Amino acid sequence: MADANDLASGNAIREGDFVLLWFDEDDVSYLVEARPGKKAAIHRGRPLEVDSWIGAPYGTKVECAHGTGYLLKPSTEDLMFKNSRESGVIYPKDAGLILIRAGISAGKKVLEVGTGSGTLTGALARAVAPDGRVFTHDRRDDFLELARKNIRRFGLQDYVEFRRREPQEAFPEKDFDAVILDIPTPWEEVDVVKEAMKGSAALISLNPTFNQIERMAEALRRAGFIRVEACELLERPILAREGKTRPVQRMVSHTEFIVSAVKVNS
Amino acid sequence: MADANDLASGNAIREGDFVLLWFDEDDVSYLVEARPGKKAAIHRGRPLEVDSWIGAPYGTKVECAHGTGYLLKPSTEDLMFKNSRESGVIYPKDAGLILIRAGISAGKKVLEVGTGSGTLTGALARAVAPDGRVFTHDRRDDFLELARKNIRRFGLQDYVEFRRREPQEAFPEKDFDAVILDIPTPWEEVDVVKEAMKGSAALISLNPTFNQIERMAEALRRAGFIRVEACELLERPILAREGKTRPVQRMVSHTEFIVSAVKVNS
Amino acid sequence: MADANDLASGNAIREGDFVLLWFDEDDVSYLVEARPGKKAAIHRGRPLEVDSWIGAPYGTKVECAHGTGYLLKPSTEDLMFKNSRESGVIYPKDAGLILIRAGISAGKKVLEVGTGSGTLTGALARAVAPDGRVFTHDRRDDFLELARKNIRRFGLQDYVEFRRREPQEAFPEKDFDAVILDIPTPWEEVDVVKEAMKGSAALISLNPTFNQIERMAEALRRAGFIRVEACELLERPILAREGKTRPVQRMVSHTEFIVSAVKVNS
Amino acid sequence: MADANDLASGNAIREGDFVLLWFDEDDVSYLVEARPGKKAAIHRGRPLEVDSWIGAPYGTKVECAHGTGYLLKPSTEDLMFKNSRESGVIYPKDAGLILIRAGISAGKKVLEVGTGSGTLTGALARAVAPDGRVFTHDRRDDFLELARKNIRRFGLQDYVEFRRREPQEAFPEKDFDAVILDIPTPWEEVDVVKEAMKGSAALISLNPTFNQIERMAEALRRAGFIRVEACELLERPILAREGKTRPVQRMVSHTEFIVSAVKVNS
Repeated sequence: MADANDLASGNAIREGDFVLLWFDEDDVSYLVEARPGKKAAIHRGRPLEVDSWIGAPYGTKVECAHGTGYLLKPSTEDLMFKNSRESGVIYPKDAGLILIRAGISAGKKVLEVGTGSGTLTGALARAVAPDGRVFTHDRRDDFLELARKNIRRFGLQDYVEFRRREPQEAFPEKDFDAVILDIPTPWEEVDVVKEAMKGSAALISLNPTFNQIERMAEALRRAGFIRVEACELLERPILAREGKTRPVQRMVSHTEFIVSAVKVNS
Repeated sequence: MADANDLASGNAIREGDFVLLWFDEDDVSYLVEARPGKKAAIHRGRPLEVDSWIGAPYGTKVECAHGTGYLLKPSTEDLMFKNSRESGVIYPKDAGLILIRAGISAGKKVLEVGTGSGTLTGALARAVAPDGRVFTHDRRDDFLELARKNIRRFGLQDYVEFRRREPQEAFPEKDFDAVILDIPTPWEEVDVVKEAMKGSAALISLNPTFNQIERMAEALRRAGFIRVEACELLERPILAREGKTRPVQRMVSHTEFIVSAVKVNS
Repeated sequence: MADANDLASGNAIREGDFVLLWFDEDDVSYLVEARPGKKAAIHRGRPLEVDSWIGAPYGTKVECAHGTGYLLKPSTEDLMFKNSRESGVIYPKDAGLILIRAGISAGKKVLEVGTGSGTLTGALARAVAPDGRVFTHDRRDDFLELARKNIRRFGLQDYVEFRRREPQEAFPEKDFDAVILDIPTPWEEVDVVKEAMKGSAALISLNPTFNQIERMAEALRRAGFIRVEACELLERPILAREGKTRPVQRMVSHTEFIVSAVKVNS
Repeated sequence: MADANDLASGNAIREGDFVLLWFDEDDVSYLVEARPGKKAAIHRGRPLEVDSWIGAPYGTKVECAHGTGYLLKPSTEDLMFKNSRESGVIYPKDAGLILIRAGISAGKKVLEVGTGSGTLTGALARAVAPDGRVFTHDRRDDFLELARKNIRRFGLQDYVEFRRREPQEAFPEKDFDAVILDIPTPWEEVDVVKEAMKGSAALISLNPTFNQIERMAEALRRAGFIRVEACELLERPILAREGKTRPVQRMVSHTEFIVSAVKVNS
């Protein structure tokens, strides 16, 4: 039964929302746009009618032929994992640390190089809204198109500028509060990116190999950046069950190394 | 030399700012309020005069008797680590994942139980500003006072409500988008907290022992929460230096386990 | 081509040896007994004739319809991974630490409770040979039978005594140099096991959950054991390739916790 | 009180034994040679008389001015940690995996390049005794002398040959069952070491940086080795206490990467 407060408090599903339909028995979920007349095709059976969802409060249980599901408001993590991943994927653990380490919050102006599928772009945009902006760049039109579509599901299209850009091309905007690089050869962009940063702004570079972070860290030091550091985050799931609590048996061992640095005026 | 754009772009240090003075040679930093006439007492020698800082752009290099320093705008991470820690400490890695997992962003209304020194409170407040609020609760007045002071250094006092509260006391506010518990016996608060949550809102509980997360996870399942999960994050620093890149030799092995769950309407 | 020294040095495959046939292209291997007239059934195609292996030196390359293979002498690790695993599996990393931590070496008399498939038994037996013994116990005849078969593949049958035993039953032998428990409720065996240990002997208990190691550690302290400690080992594979060295993307996150303690005379 | 069986079973401390004196209250221990008339100088107070230890069973409690201690038989791990460490240190977790992965057991002939302080040498010697041998090489006489002294404390001097050797010098012995390299530039030794190995023998190289293991792995592949792999082991201590079980807060994050490979005949 819906909570009376949920409707009063604006917790109702509105037309156009992307709703996370989550099934209890197998922890599988679907991101579905709430549109009148829409039928959502899901892997587990015949299409679902979403008409009745509109106006229902988030958190509503739906019993259907496919099992017991719940209509949830997707978290940033849900949206990141639901992104179409034709490019590499950024993990929530890494996105979270980036926000904190680079001080990315409402009102900040963030430069992203390497849009990919827009997974990280979404997390950045959510953090700078409502009065900041993410300027994201990729050399591939198809990635920009894909990212644009994904960002719309975050409902964050107003906070992102998509730009096609060739490697080492100068940026028309300046005075960025933070820069995120998610490209294979970030050291080639250090000089042009530095030009676009405010003094004291943070630069973060994500790369999977040691060779890349070694080269990037040295390039940053040579370019006069300070606080050049690298780390990695490991997320280890724990099964928390009465009398049998233990780490799960397999985990993701490696995603990206995180190199961070700060620009100073010299 | 200062970047011309830095002044134009509002990147100048203003009176009342908390500035991070960072020293190159030993990676030690100090958080100093920029007040006219103020002398900052730092461990490395006689007090520093901060008068000249006001109006200088962030990122400025300062040469002084104490070595080569830089005037930096503190990131969320810097502020978290500079908090007075008379209570336990929350790590940036954990705070970051919480933001992403619970979907905490501008405009959200967040409930925190266990203010402590306000370290996490600051990260939450920065994420919900400018139009959201964090309502934080502690049973100890001294912690609330300490946190209030720390939050002022974040410049986030407008986004936080501090409340003294006894365990299991009902909350006057309802309809929270997210709840964070950082207390030793979180299972005792599950029912009262659930009352205050919107449908589909996320609950996160932080605890250091397996005993606590096992008990909390089971309490959440019994109370009808869904997606009850636990994990831990390990941050491993890497020394990225040409020809000798390797993980550093010692690391923090454990901070807090993170239990997460979602409220649904039943 | 075979190394002349290999034959001289007794490096030739002998009748009855268990040979590891390892295929280059997919890192798949088979443990095959070298018996005249034997045809080895392997997953990748028609049976292999092993006649010609006998007398060949270890390390010989064999080209066959199934690809390029090599005839290898199985390491302890190979034998552990090739064990029939109808019971739980012990990992080489854990077995190795046990040997070092409990000082298990040639001549030692080791007590094992929980034979399972005999994986750890084999590693222990290899360490105590030629003049030590492993006394291994299980309540299930089928496990003892399975382990006996597995131990024969290690060629270690002379160093192991297999014993059927009920929980909490006293041990006829005494004066063990080390005790290994690999059972679900090790705390029930602490007293009877202590009786059978020499002063200063090490006890090691392997269990997957926190609940178990907490209970076991406390039982050991209560029974007067000293140096009661617990740890876990994580093995992280690294892809070491020119210009793209990085941790692999998925790993085993958890096997067993290792509780260790030392008996003293009181 | 001593166990009657301890004396019967040869569990008495003999003249010349190295005894681990372990103190309960602070987990500090001392490795002391049991010599008549000897006074052991320990950090915690005036010298201890060890006369009375000789003939006492291992595991005996000693009450003295310094606290409550126990006379223990040092495990391989204890001896490794008590080695004089003027050179780098090898950790028990790594030594254990090496034994299992390289199949090092009684009777094996092992080649070690890079003796250092002899820490790993001791673990290897203990594993090959009584009828195997470790041939260990270093270019520095002082390390060989230090290692010789340390190996005597293990009581393993009969199983180790110490050799002074220049880099890339050929080995007079051949047909080694396993090779361990613990030197900064192992790739320079691949060819000469390969010459000295049996077919199917294992090679293990220990190095702390990614640059080293990348270069070594590629050198091994070029030299025709198979099963070229790399990994690292992390040991995480757990505090197992009733109601407050959790990982300890700080840990060793990195020791050595382990590269392994197998020689084949070509």
